[in-house]
Amino acid sequence: MKPGIKDVAKVAGVSPTTVSRVLNDRGYISEETRKKVYRAMKTIDYTPNEIARALLNNRTYLVGVIVPSISSPFHGQVVQYVEQFLAKDNYKTLLCNSKNRSDTEKEYVSMLRRNQVDGIIVGTHNENLKEYEEAKLPIVAIDRYIAKDVATVSCDNYIAGKIATERLIAKGCRHILCIRGNSRLKMPGNDRSRAYMETMKRYHYEPLIMEVEFIKTIEEKKKLVSEMLEKHPEIDGVFAGDDTLAVLVLNLAREKGIQIPKDMKVIGVDGAEQTLSMVPELTTVQQPIEAIARVTVQTLIDQIEGKEVESHTDLPVRLIEGTTA
Amino acid sequence: MKPGIKDVAKVAGVSPTTVSRVLNDRGYISEETRKKVYRAMKTIDYTPNEIARALLNNRTYLVGVIVPSISSPFHGQVVQYVEQFLAKDNYKTLLCNSKNRSDTEKEYVSMLRRNQVDGIIVGTHNENLKEYEEAKLPIVAIDRYIAKDVATVSCDNYIAGKIATERLIAKGCRHILCIRGNSRLKMPGNDRSRAYMETMKRYHYEPLIMEVEFIKTIEEKKKLVSEMLEKHPEIDGVFAGDDTLAVLVLNLAREKGIQIPKDMKVIGVDGAEQTLSMVPELTTVQQPIEAIARVTVQTLIDQIEGKEVESHTDLPVRLIEGTTA
Repeated sequence: MKPGIKDVAKVAGVSPTTVSRVLNDRGYISEETRKKVYRAMKTIDYTPNEIARALLNNRTYLVGVIVPSISSPFHGQVVQYVEQFLAKDNYKTLLCNSKNRSDTEKEYVSMLRRNQVDGIIVGTHNENLKEYEEAKLPIVAIDRYIAKDVATVSCDNYIAGKIATERLIAKGCRHILCIRGNSRLKMPGNDRSRAYMETMKRYHYEPLIMEVEFIKTIEEKKKLVSEMLEKHPEIDGVFAGDDTLAVLVLNLAREKGIQIPKDMKVIGVDGAEQTLSMVPELTTVQQPIEAIARVTVQTLIDQIEGKEVESHTDLPVRLIEGTTA
Repeated sequence: MKPGIKDVAKVAGVSPTTVSRVLNDRGYISEETRKKVYRAMKTIDYTPNEIARALLNNRTYLVGVIVPSISSPFHGQVVQYVEQFLAKDNYKTLLCNSKNRSDTEKEYVSMLRRNQVDGIIVGTHNENLKEYEEAKLPIVAIDRYIAKDVATVSCDNYIAGKIATERLIAKGCRHILCIRGNSRLKMPGNDRSRAYMETMKRYHYEPLIMEVEFIKTIEEKKKLVSEMLEKHPEIDGVFAGDDTLAVLVLNLAREKGIQIPKDMKVIGVDGAEQTLSMVPELTTVQQPIEAIARVTVQTLIDQIEGKEVESHTDLPVRLIEGTTA
């Protein structure tokens, strides 16, 4: 049997209530008694039970983090930082990969509630689920609108789309294809293609948008983009909604013998570390991933502590000048 | 206030003890009573408190997963699958990124103990830490030796090294550089370079090994490999200990005007989905990542349930024929 509070009390020569007070930092305890209790804990290798303390204090310091998949470079790096910032404030990360299935996401929300998490961070791509509203918990969404009262943290998506489109135009592109995710979902990321549309209009160029659903496989996406490029041989620039799509276009161009950047220029959005180390030639608009994670975690903790928070925080992007655009 | 067991009991017209029995599936309860209790739970939107139940049953269904960084393609995909397989058996994943710092890793182990996890899965690169032995918990290590009694799951690293070296030789390479991690650490992955050494000897070719520590930055690694290639212009093949290093060599070769595969051939190990979708031309020996995760999770659950487990499971690799070797 693991040693318990009673064993600590016996060795320290105090009552179990006193040990409990020391552990939970409640009531008046003299410095001498406190030391005696800590010494006894060390002597018998007592590990305080945070689960029991959580029940007592109605705070678990558990935070659920739901993303489509941590094996994508963007979400991997976001969750990496989120976990790091949560850990700094003694919060623990319960990881949930929804694989973009709304039934899985619903089950996760229910599981997180049963486990009394203090809050939830969401970065999925599903339709608004009523489960989040019903959870009555502090929630922060990354680059997504969840519900009226749920705070959102994202990069400045409009500026990202504007920078990308203007870069392609400045580099001489006139027939620019914009590849984006599903427009059916109401997401901050939709501002990227809106900025593209408005920028193209301002320059009096014809916009050309194609939608590629996020949940499709790489092969399916490749086939769709390939058909598009064949149908529109005039395309001389591609603004890809994210770097995964941008890299897909680069690989497709190589297969087709299209020279980048001579025949066609390509720019993406995200700029995750892993992507830039693998494809260093990529020109992209980088999201401030570390800052997004930091602000998300702080916004959640502020909510947990009952403070007022911003309903939407936009963080600045920057252009990474590779050689593809 | 959230509704509690007493509220459920009142609505169902039974005692709180009966509700508790239904929730924990203990003692005899008639089907009719069970239904009454479930109906009452639904009526007042009662969420069972898994934390309270965990304390009662001495099982939390929490599993700590410690990896260096989930933003690496290999660990990202491993953790993705580990979380998925754990969730299938109702276990929850507490994510810990150690960033390869042993002090951080020690703190995580202590935190996981305080939170009464049922077990730990480790995939870090640190020296053996006595904390794991002291934890007296079911532990499974991925591609790592932790302690005498800790089970290890890995790919067949020796075969991986043999396949890679023989592929380069078959493609005509005679001066093959092997880039590997730190040999100071006792890891199953060391078998990759051992297989390289033995294969080279069998063919009477001179082996050339360089060590690049895992914790170095991409830029530092690039500088070291660059110096090595300049010092040994005869190198016509590179066996990189992992795909991150292989891709680094590809990018370096491009910068230096070394043509791949004409002037130099490159092969890696890992074959994570993300890497293959970004660098589809890469020839590599693929680890069975999904199987590694499945066996790891099953081995841990077997231990939690008190079953005997294999001390080391080796899983088969396969060659992915790209165009770089």
